[in-house]
Amino acid sequence: MIVLANKYGKKTWLIPDCFLHSVSKNEQVSHEAICVLNTSDTDALIKLTLFYEDRDKIDDFEASCKAGRTHHIRLDKLTSKSGQKIVRDTPYAILVESNTEVVVQYSRLDTSEVEMALMTTIAYPVE
Amino acid sequence: MIVLANKYGKKTWLIPDCFLHSVSKNEQVSHEAICVLNTSDTDALIKLTLFYEDRDKIDDFEASCKAGRTHHIRLDKLTSKSGQKIVRDTPYAILVESNTEVVVQYSRLDTSEVEMALMTTIAYPVE
Amino acid sequence: MIVLANKYGKKTWLIPDCFLHSVSKNEQVSHEAICVLNTSDTDALIKLTLFYEDRDKIDDFEASCKAGRTHHIRLDKLTSKSGQKIVRDTPYAILVESNTEVVVQYSRLDTSEVEMALMTTIAYPVE
Amino acid sequence: MIVLANKYGKKTWLIPDCFLHSVSKNEQVSHEAICVLNTSDTDALIKLTLFYEDRDKIDDFEASCKAGRTHHIRLDKLTSKSGQKIVRDTPYAILVESNTEVVVQYSRLDTSEVEMALMTTIAYPVE
Repeated sequence: MIVLANKYGKKTWLIPDCFLHSVSKNEQVSHEAICVLNTSDTDALIKLTLFYEDRDKIDDFEASCKAGRTHHIRLDKLTSKSGQKIVRDTPYAILVESNTEVVVQYSRLDTSEVEMALMTTIAYPVE
Repeated sequence: MIVLANKYGKKTWLIPDCFLHSVSKNEQVSHEAICVLNTSDTDALIKLTLFYEDRDKIDDFEASCKAGRTHHIRLDKLTSKSGQKIVRDTPYAILVESNTEVVVQYSRLDTSEVEMALMTTIAYPVE
Repeated sequence: MIVLANKYGKKTWLIPDCFLHSVSKNEQVSHEAICVLNTSDTDALIKLTLFYEDRDKIDDFEASCKAGRTHHIRLDKLTSKSGQKIVRDTPYAILVESNTEVVVQYSRLDTSEVEMALMTTIAYPVE
Repeated sequence: MIVLANKYGKKTWLIPDCFLHSVSKNEQVSHEAICVLNTSDTDALIKLTLFYEDRDKIDDFEASCKAGRTHHIRLDKLTSKSGQKIVRDTPYAILVESNTEVVVQYSRLDTSEVEMALMTTIAYPVE
């Protein structure tokens, strides 16, 4: 008998408040993560489109999350297909699009002061 | 061929917990932001209505978010049409109304102590 | 012409993670708030039911939020009809029931260390 | 007359961003909690499935939440049926499955620096 895994979540998620701080005053670097949970039997190919306040959107960042796995995508470590890193100290927003259902949570660690701050939210899912 | 951008989100969002702290003890000023993501082809005109605990609501604050852009609206920098700033050290709440679909996230940075604190949540969308 | 205010939100909200810390090491006391936004024309009567891990629920806490107003209900200052305060240092959860539609956000300020921490989330609405 | 309690919430919830920090620099240990609120008349049996980035999922963690109670499940104290603790310093995600409707909120306290950081979000519910 084949038991198929449940596919939970949605294929499209949005996160309006993104910001990569350039300052890190303790051993943990200031960073953001797009945390993806893929409970399905299909590997997830994930496209990230970045929106800015005063320049055109960038749509050549990609990531993945294997079937039955999570991937905490570190945005400070991500490189686009054209070899770019995400610009720090600049307000931006992210549209997350997956080829299979996933759940997405956004978190930020800020160590611009020695004692860090954390924030998190489940991203906004498109029904 | 014309490819129309997808319109994601809702036109009406609410944030019950707003508070602009008057104290900033490090180089980053205590502030709140209404972070808007507009994936549509239409510029978003955004009306902010402020609700208080013991005075009438104020409905002459406006902002915008261009098509295909994000805008992290800094509430400490916003000025109403009648020339007012948002009062600090006072609990309030915000109703966000846009003429086109957007996604809204609310974040607060508090530096009333040197080591800051952060909090964030996707705002409450009206279906 | 009479323009009726829009009634946004739901009448029932839940918050599983509540905790009032007894320690406050700076001038701001550790506290939690149930932040209510009432955009309707009707004053909201709000019943809070508290759930615990190892004792029966308590259902005699009440609050209110006037029409067209917000109320950031400070849980550390609230007194029940039987004269009780909410117990500190004890995990609990809250069911919020209103007689009219409101939006509810939960926030916590923890100053058990000098440099505070903040967290917030929109509460879980019952459809 | 028998008054049945209302069953609020859902049976399935997901949390993509979990991480148990191994460092605690003040008297409060770094920890995460799955906070469950069970307003129903039925005790909730709760199965936790843990997903990782580079190893197979683990599905033998269980917890419970009695009828009319909350349970703030401390993930750092939980032991699986095979006697394992959750691995620290490793990104993971959690699928929460209950036999009765509950509401789930995820919170993290990080004391890897003396001054702690907090974050919280209502988990993602499956409709």
